[in-house]
Amino acid sequence: MDTALDVALRYHEAWVGRRLDEAMSYVADDIVCLAPAGRIEGADAYRAFIGPFLDILVSAEMIAAFGDDTTALIMYDTRTRPVPSAPGAECLTVVDGKIVHSRFLFDRAPFDAARAAAK
Amino acid sequence: MDTALDVALRYHEAWVGRRLDEAMSYVADDIVCLAPAGRIEGADAYRAFIGPFLDILVSAEMIAAFGDDTTALIMYDTRTRPVPSAPGAECLTVVDGKIVHSRFLFDRAPFDAARAAAK
Repeated sequence: MDTALDVALRYHEAWVGRRLDEAMSYVADDIVCLAPAGRIEGADAYRAFIGPFLDILVSAEMIAAFGDDTTALIMYDTRTRPVPSAPGAECLTVVDGKIVHSRFLFDRAPFDAARAAAK
Repeated sequence: MDTALDVALRYHEAWVGRRLDEAMSYVADDIVCLAPAGRIEGADAYRAFIGPFLDILVSAEMIAAFGDDTTALIMYDTRTRPVPSAPGAECLTVVDGKIVHSRFLFDRAPFDAARAAAK
């Protein structure tokens, strides 16, 4: 039986490896994600949230990853085109190999600033 | 010997309990913290970073906390006066019972928005 951390790491590696379909294979249809901009419900909405990030992602590096049977907590740094260092953290609840709940945290401020500067 | 997680939890509980001196007793004099606004070096600068938050903190709740001998990773939610839900995550490196390195993550956007609205 895979631990929550096993699932979280495979999901994360697929995502930052730009294998979005593979990443989504670890996401439950009825995922609930509490993200900086609000509550995201369902796999389609979640895909629309994490997918566009791949257009700006340059590279990613894991900072720390821990977990137990049901919960994984990861923190990573990403280099993106608009923001050189954009760390993120995710607390993922896993049931039957799928992510059913996520607390997704990153700092929106530098992305807001980059968007404003591009105007 | 206390684990990194023991130290991290005591630091965190002291901080959100508004016992700033006690929280700082777990912080090394030469701490380096990578925070959303940039690099913070030394205990005095770190205290100036985490202290003012207590003026706006209403309550805090741990979401998840994990660690090993040297590293702790915690995610928590806070209720603050300007922002109803302001989660944070910290990846803390502990040496000899003191936090020597921190990656500190929270979303500055709602705080920026609250500040702009107050003007």
